[in-house]
Formats: sequence, C-alpha cells, structure tokens
Amino acid sequence: MKTRGIIALSYQMEIRTKKDGDEKGLWNILQPVVRAGDTYALPRDWSRDDALRYWCAPGHQVWVAEENERIIGSYFLQANQLGGGDHVANAGFATHPEATGRGVATALCTHALSLATSLGFRAMQFNFVVSTNERAVALWKKFGFRIAGTLPKAFRHPTRGFVDVYVMYREL
Amino acid sequence: MKTRGIIALSYQMEIRTKKDGDEKGLWNILQPVVRAGDTYALPRDWSRDDALRYWCAPGHQVWVAEENERIIGSYFLQANQLGGGDHVANAGFATHPEATGRGVATALCTHALSLATSLGFRAMQFNFVVSTNERAVALWKKFGFRIAGTLPKAFRHPTRGFVDVYVMYREL
Repeated sequence: MKTRGIIALSYQMEIRTKKDGDEKGLWNILQPVVRAGDTYALPRDWSRDDALRYWCAPGHQVWVAEENERIIGSYFLQANQLGGGDHVANAGFATHPEATGRGVATALCTHALSLATSLGFRAMQFNFVVSTNERAVALWKKFGFRIAGTLPKAFRHPTRGFVDVYVMYREL
Repeated sequence: MKTRGIIALSYQMEIRTKKDGDEKGLWNILQPVVRAGDTYALPRDWSRDDALRYWCAPGHQVWVAEENERIIGSYFLQANQLGGGDHVANAGFATHPEATGRGVATALCTHALSLATSLGFRAMQFNFVVSTNERAVALWKKFGFRIAGTLPKAFRHPTRGFVDVYVMYREL
C-alpha cells in the first residue's frame, strides 16, 4: 500500500513555455472549455484555430504543464492594459478535464504569480471570473485574490441563465 | 444680450457614424488624450495610426459629434466580452479639448446608451475609469453608472503616481 501511494504521488509535472507542436495538446484542453461555455466568455462554436489564436495572442506568454509528454494544463500571462496600466498582469488558466483535482491549476497559478512578479508586474487582475465557477473562485481566494467588484448578470450561463461575474485582484 | 445668448446656444451638433476622411478630425481629438496619458491606459508615444487602429478596431462602432464640419467628439461601442458575455456593451469617449464643458460627452453618452439598448445590450461596462478623472466619474454617475469595483493603484498617473481605477457598470 505504501509503495503504491508513493508511486501515485510521484508523477512528474513540468511547466514550460509553449512551443511549436503543442497546438494539438492545447486544443485538447481548450476544446472542452470552449464547448462547455460555462467559465469563459468565448463563443461555444469556436474552431480550433479561433481558440488557439485567442490563447496564443500577440502579447501573451503561454506556458504549459506537461506530464509524460502530455499537456495537462496551460496558462497565458499578459499585461492587462497598455500605457499607464501595464504594471498589472492578467492571466487565463485551463486544465485538461481528466487532470482536474490534482493540483495542476495550483501549480500553474503559483508559477504565474512568480513569473509576473519577476517580470516587474505590481498586481494581477482577473477581469471575468464567472461566479458559478466556484472551484476557480475558491482557488483564487486561496492565492490571495479578492473580489474587487461584482458585475451583475454579466454572464449568460448555458444552464443557469444570467449570473454575476467577479473582477478579482491581487497585489504582488 | 438676449440675441447673443440665443446665438451662443444655437450651435448645431450632429452625431453620425464615422466615415472615410474622418481620420484627421479623430486624431485631433485622440492625440491630446494619448499624449496626456492621464485618463486612458494607452502608450503616450502612440502614433496617429496606433491611436486610430485602437479607436476604430474591428468590432467597434465608431460615432463622431460634428459641429460646423468639425469633429468635436467621438465614441466607440463594442461588446465588452464574447460568447456568454456579449450582452454587455463597452464604450470609450473623447472630446476635443476646445469643446469641453459644452455637453459633448453628455450628448455622446446619451446616444451610446440609446444605441446600446436598441442593439439589445443589457448593460454597459466601463473597464478602466481612472479615479482622478473626476469629471468623467461624475458624468457616468449622473448617467446611472455605479462603481462596481475599485482596482487599487491600477494606473500610473503621469503626475500623481499610482492611483485607483474604477470598474463602472449600468444595466440598460
């Protein structure tokens, strides 16, 4: 039993920058997010190219979490605004459905906060956290983000109708 | 005296969609905004092309206020998010420095709220209202916008340093 436990905990996850050839692995993660349409404000009928163009947009630093040569999570980091607002970072996170509950998002967020700090950002802002995405809200709170504002009924949830959205913010 | 008063109040302002040839007039409005860098989070060294590309971005409906064949103000309207968030509008406003205090912004905002409503938007959101821009904050409040959230020190004001930013929101 003990050995099995050790084996179960010993998986290797590497977080590295996105490279050419990662597109298929990224789409495997993004497709369920886009199709579900319950956490990101993105068109549910987006193609693979649409989703990759969004995730890997100019100005985005894209990182992936890889395990046994399989991408199980990803995040992008960018400045949330230009000019006098470019000291606040923004990031987006996604985890492969089969890899949830294993700390992937925690590892990615830890990495993103550290990277943002090292790049000189002074704060991180999430512009659009759907209030019904309780898992994400709880995780961001654990990381020190607080709800800076609530946007009433700003999201049309595919099953729950109009729901509130949070702007979440954390100084670095 | 009375006659002069009547003359002073009788200026004609027309609000119409942006057309080819408006670029010079638009830049006359945007240049002071960009160069001052105290209200919009835009690079202060932006060129005319940068500014026009931003203001007239794909997805933006651009309107101008014209008086005696001179553009004295402009706004753009867009969906603030995609997918499940595309029922909330976003807009940006600018007035020619020589035309401030004459109700141009009021006329443009009245027009924008009416247009957004007619297009089926359910709310309007301003993502980045610099708190020191008291004139704008007061005007948006008069129009029924409330501060949905405060982003601490999210803007580097060119003379006041790090200042707060408001997210403002109004249902339509």
